Parts: sequence; structure tokens; C-alpha cells
Amino acid sequence: MTLPARAQEPGTTTTIHTDGAGEVRRTVLPGGLRVVTETMPTVRSAAFGIWASVGSRDEVAADAGASHYLEHVLFKGTRRRSALEISAAIDAVGGDLNAFTAKEYTCYYARVLDADLPLAVDVVSDMVAESVNRPEDVEAERGVILEEIHMRDDDPGDLVHDVFADALYGETPLGRPILGTEESINALSRDRIHGYYRDRYVPQNLVVSVAGNIDHDRVVGLVSDAFAGHLTGDAAPSGPRLGGAPAPAAPRTIVLDEDTEQAHIILGCLGVSRTDDRRFALGVLDAALGGGMSSRLFQEIREKRGLAYSVYSYTAHYADSGIFGVYAGCQPSKAEEVLQICRDELARAGDLTAEELERGKGQLRGATVLGLEDTGSRMTRIAKSELVYESLMPVDEVLARVEAVTLDDVRAVVADVLDAPQALAVIGPVPDGFGS
Amino acid sequence: MTLPARAQEPGTTTTIHTDGAGEVRRTVLPGGLRVVTETMPTVRSAAFGIWASVGSRDEVAADAGASHYLEHVLFKGTRRRSALEISAAIDAVGGDLNAFTAKEYTCYYARVLDADLPLAVDVVSDMVAESVNRPEDVEAERGVILEEIHMRDDDPGDLVHDVFADALYGETPLGRPILGTEESINALSRDRIHGYYRDRYVPQNLVVSVAGNIDHDRVVGLVSDAFAGHLTGDAAPSGPRLGGAPAPAAPRTIVLDEDTEQAHIILGCLGVSRTDDRRFALGVLDAALGGGMSSRLFQEIREKRGLAYSVYSYTAHYADSGIFGVYAGCQPSKAEEVLQICRDELARAGDLTAEELERGKGQLRGATVLGLEDTGSRMTRIAKSELVYESLMPVDEVLARVEAVTLDDVRAVVADVLDAPQALAVIGPVPDGFGS
Repeated sequence: MTLPARAQEPGTTTTIHTDGAGEVRRTVLPGGLRVVTETMPTVRSAAFGIWASVGSRDEVAADAGASHYLEHVLFKGTRRRSALEISAAIDAVGGDLNAFTAKEYTCYYARVLDADLPLAVDVVSDMVAESVNRPEDVEAERGVILEEIHMRDDDPGDLVHDVFADALYGETPLGRPILGTEESINALSRDRIHGYYRDRYVPQNLVVSVAGNIDHDRVVGLVSDAFAGHLTGDAAPSGPRLGGAPAPAAPRTIVLDEDTEQAHIILGCLGVSRTDDRRFALGVLDAALGGGMSSRLFQEIREKRGLAYSVYSYTAHYADSGIFGVYAGCQPSKAEEVLQICRDELARAGDLTAEELERGKGQLRGATVLGLEDTGSRMTRIAKSELVYESLMPVDEVLARVEAVTLDDVRAVVADVLDAPQALAVIGPVPDGFGS
Repeated sequence: MTLPARAQEPGTTTTIHTDGAGEVRRTVLPGGLRVVTETMPTVRSAAFGIWASVGSRDEVAADAGASHYLEHVLFKGTRRRSALEISAAIDAVGGDLNAFTAKEYTCYYARVLDADLPLAVDVVSDMVAESVNRPEDVEAERGVILEEIHMRDDDPGDLVHDVFADALYGETPLGRPILGTEESINALSRDRIHGYYRDRYVPQNLVVSVAGNIDHDRVVGLVSDAFAGHLTGDAAPSGPRLGGAPAPAAPRTIVLDEDTEQAHIILGCLGVSRTDDRRFALGVLDAALGGGMSSRLFQEIREKRGLAYSVYSYTAHYADSGIFGVYAGCQPSKAEEVLQICRDELARAGDLTAEELERGKGQLRGATVLGLEDTGSRMTRIAKSELVYESLMPVDEVLARVEAVTLDDVRAVVADVLDAPQALAVIGPVPDGFGS
């Protein structure tokens, strides 16, 4: 295992390990800002990201949506740059500048040709470190975020995931939508947003992550210049995210009776945390149940019966909790039948065959390796390791852990996880009392 | 320029050119089947695709959706494999097997680790060359496709593109949705689908395209084995797709008064064909008007006024026609204002500044280069060149053509294209007579 970031002396650099073709290194700057890089010498581009260990889970109910709102406002201008100057700088070199907010972190990134990396470091660091959050910009962006909420509301296949989080986690931070609500967004003041920024976007909560055709020391120099003025004190980097004892209400059924063409259904239960050793067995189970076209749910619901176009299972992992869920979109008149098949398949998941086990492992193995060929996913992997794990697990170890999963492991995780109370979220014109 | 495929003697191989790191080669097999490959020696994976020069544009109205329906049915089984055996083979190695249908072509592809390429060639070729299209499978898949249509109907940001095609192209093949309609799908018989397959999926209409860590001669050997029995006769490959004199009705306004949260708006007009020399100037214009966060539409509608979350312009190119369009999703009560801004911006597009021109070129340049780092996009590029262009334009020439665009070129394309009658599609609760 590798040295955790917070145990590394500020002002020093360590080589975490070499992983496949590239080398992963970390420098801790004064003040606790971390810079992690992975070299990919065969590409001609670089992905540059700044990650903050702040997400919707950190919000009290009255602030719901503040992390995401702030993410938008950071594009609106700094001491040195207007919103147009920020976007024009990256557009001019054909880069891809964007950001996203999750429940436990927020990421700002730019993907550029390698020669344009200094520009990307300068612009994205400026956005994150020197945002001015002008009141008029906060106001203009309020309308944008309300439209993002309306767009989500117009897409029931998207909305049903937020409804499901509510059904599973209830009135806890993990149960609330990342976007917030119309009410909470309308109530958030500029001072509240700015205070959130000042309190949370401190160097020890930030990780700068870069992957591509780059040189670690040069990146550290660029980041040091870009964050000059913020690199003081002897704060250690934040430790991995530990979560915060969510106390989910008993899982519920929530039905939104909307006039959609399809019934959009998610059935699921609490899964496992991202550091839970059972995550590899649950991943294999997920692949076998609903991860590909050969999976049981796809075969039963789509291939044999033609009841759905989109049907899949999925997992989500948080610091101290997780989700295992099944989605299907079908004719409202077939919703009972589809839901019953989903329930039956979850109930009989313990009888996975050796062939299905091997296929599930193969799926995870291939997806893991194929998923790490681009700079963006490498950048994401090393950043998340810094933010949420105790250490970076080499890809080879991930693959070995997948390979080691046995049928007994899968049966154990079925008994532990799938036997739990189920939550159900439905959007569509289904009968009263549906699902009960 | 390189030798067109149909001028190349069956049974021979030619090196088209070397492009960046890799080499592009083509072999024409007996019967006219083409195999094009691009080597990317630094990756560990391969993208394998089979492309048919068949799409929704080839359908008479009664067959609407047949190309896409057939694409689904090809996953249902061959002489040698059931649907489960097809998907299980690729799932077992963690590959990504999928397909898509466009207006002018259909593609079946698998992305796999390089060691698994022989398997991918065998499975995908089997699907395309040896499909049995059993009546019961055609029936089961009918339900799946109807659900795909319903899913599209539940997503107004997706549906509005089909409505816009209707508004622009009217009752012509380009005006019809790729998915077909509930009526046309319900009316399509197994024999009709099977006949469509037998007539269209002939070797001279197919292109096998592979990019990644591969060897051309080895790929040709694998493909020859997989298509054994189909490689006879001296048919030359089909020439590039020429289209078919679409006679669009006068562009119209279509408003679907649905109870959505947002008004989803597309305003646009006929663009240029994919071989039109003006496509580079139109591409730069597209970038400057609505291609990034620094673009005029983004700045005016989102950044300054906060009226939309999603706003962008786009182009589509067909053999003999094309689209230039602008999308925005906004509050229904703001739809008039947003539409007026879109119209104003299209009207004043001729006054693009030198700075905007350069930024638009930079955007295209960067997106082109960054967009070719993965095997899938390289595979797609060389396949489309075979199907729809007279020859493969090297990336360097594409970049040079972009670089050569002048302000005069942009002004000319504005006068030629944006001055044309506009079509308008709207989904949402807007007032009667909206847009007129």
C-alpha cells in the first residue's frame, strides 16, 4: 500500500507507483494542496482537473444545491478574468472545459492538447482559487440552475434516479438531489454561496489531478505559480472522506403519477460503501444481473419478452453507504409484470452459475482496462483515490481482487445486501397502490 | 488524394496513407467487401466495426424504421449463435458490443482488448453475415422498438430533433424519424425485414473498419474467414453515397403543445452537404455562434440573461443536404424572448470578428485532434470515408482546410445558408401562433 497523502510532509514529492505504462506521483504543497499526476507518454493531450471534497452531502437542508450552484458560479469570473475570458481562453485552443458536482465531491476540468496544458492550469486554477462570485452573476446563474432543474424534470429517465434516492435515503443528505430544489435555489443568497466557497475551497480540501503527456515537476511548478498566495501554513491534506453516519429512514415506495409514455421504475436497496471489501463481489453480481446484454435482467425483460428497451442494474458507492438498483422503462400496462420479474431476479440472485460468475468477472476486467485508455478517466481515478480512499489501488490489484471473487462471495453479498428492505421509485401513469 | 475503393482491384491491398502515428490500409476482397484499418500501436485495444450503407433514408414511407428494426434483429441470432451466445461471448471478455442506425448508414461495433480481436471479428461478422431473423425474434423485438420510441417520446430534448427534421424536410425520407413510427413498426412483417436484409447487406455495401493495436494482414485473414461463403464474384465496392435529390417542402413551423416544464426549441435551415467545400466555413461559424461557452448564443442566452441551461448550435451533413440548427430549452414564458435572440443572432452572424474567427478555428482544430485519440473515433472516421466520401482526407488536410477559412468565407456561407427560409420546432406549453 502507498503512503497516504496526509502522512506526507508538505513540500515533498513521492512516487506512488507505476501503473501500466505510466507513473503516478504526488506532491504535497505548503498549505496542504495536493498535486497528483499520471504520465501517459503515448498520448498528445492532457486532462487537468481540480477536485474539491465538497458535494451535496455536505449541505444542510436549507442549503440544498449550494455545492452545485457554486460550481456554476465559479465559471462567472475571477479577479483577472470575466466569464467570457475564461471560456474564450479554452475555446481558442479547442479544449473541453467543464465541471460536475456529485454527492461527495466537485470537479472542474479541462482536456487540452499537451502543449496547451500551461493555459489550462492557469485558467482552471484561477477559476477555483480566485473566484469573485459577484452578486449579479449569482443572480443570473440562478435562472440557469432553475432551467437545469426543469430540464431534469422533463426527462423521467433521469428524474427517477433522484426520486429513488429519496425513497431509499429519505430526509438525509444522501436522499436530496444534487441540484437542490426550486425553493432552495431561490432562497440561496450570494453571501451564503460565497461563504460556502470561502469555507470549503481551502487548499487542504483540494486535489489537483493531471493525466496525459506531462511532466510531474513541470506541472507542480505551474500549479505552484497558479495558486501562489494560497500556499501557506503547514496544514496537512484532508484525510479520505469518511461520510457521516447517514440514518436512512426505512426504504419507501414513491410513485409520481405523471402522464408519460413509459413507466420508469427503479427497484433497489442499500449497497456497500466504496471501501467495503464486498464491493468486488457486488460488482460481479451487478454485471451478471444487469450489466450487459447477456445479463439475466436483459435476457428476461428485453430479449425474451420484449418488454423494455432500457433495462439495467447499477451500483453507487459513497464513503459509508451505497446503492444497488435496477432500472427499467416499459409500457405502464406492463409495469406490474416488469416489476415482478425484477423482484424475482433479485430473489434468485444467489443461484448464480459458475459460468455467469466468470462472465461477470470478464466484464469487470475488460471494462476496467478499456476504461483507462483516455486521459480523463486516468485523471479521475487518481483524484478520487486522493479524495476518498486511504490509498491508490494499482490497476493490477483491482483486477486481482475481481479475479479472486468466488461463488461463495457472491452468495454472501446476496444474503447481506439483496435481502434488505427494498425501495421503489416509479414515474408514470400506474394504478393507485402500485408496487405494494 | 487517395485511390477510391471502387477503383481498386478486388483481392488487392493498398496503403491509403499514414496519418499521425498510424497507417491506414485498405483491402478489397472478392465480392467487393472492403476492409480498412488504422494502426494505433500505443493502445492495447481495438475497435472493430461493420458498416452498411443503409439507413432510414433508404426506406419508403411504409417501411419507415426498417433499417433500425433490422439493426435490432441482427442481435437476435445466427445459424451458429443464439442472442445469448452473441452477447455472452463479448460480455465474457468485457467488450463493448453495440450498434446504431443513422439516416444514411448503419454500424455494428465491438470495442475489445487487442488480444480479443479475433473473437470480436468472429461474433460481429457472424451477426451481420449470417443472421436468421426468426419470426418469433422479430416479434419480440417489435416490443423493444416500440419502447425505444416511447422512451424518445418521454424526452422532449431528444424528440424535438425529430420534430425539427419533419419541419425542415417534410414528407421526404430525411424528414422521417430513424426509429419509424408506432404505425410503421407495427406494420413491418418479418418477411419485409428479412428481404430488406437480404437485399441490402451484400458485401459491396459493407465496410469492415478496425482501429487499434492491430495488424492489417491479420485482420484481413480473420475477416476473410468470418465472411467465407460471401466473398465471391467480381462486384466492385459501392461508390460513395450520393443521396437522392431530396425535395424538401418549404420549411415549416411545428409546435407540439405538451405539458413540459421547459419549451424545447430548434430554429434552423438547410445547411450544406458533407462534400460541400463550404463545410469548413460553416463549421467555424457554428463554433463561433453556438459551439462553446464563449459562443454568441451561450453568452447572450445563458451567460448574460440566465434564460437557459442548454443552448447550442449544430450542423448535420448528408450526401446532398445538411442542417444548421440552434437548440435552446427555457421557461415557456421566456420562449418568445429566447427565440427572438436566436433569430437576431442568426441575422447578424455576418459580422463575425477576426477574434471570433480565430477562436472558432481553434475550437475545430482542438476538437478534431482530441477527438481522434480513441480507437472508436478512428474506426468511425475511416469507415465513413469509405462509405460516404470519394476519398479519405488526412487529418492534416482537414486542419489545413479549417486554418484556411477567412472572414470572407464565413460571410459567404452566412449569405448562402443562414439567409434561407427557417424551420422551427417547439415542444412545450407555448401560446397559439407561437413563432409566427
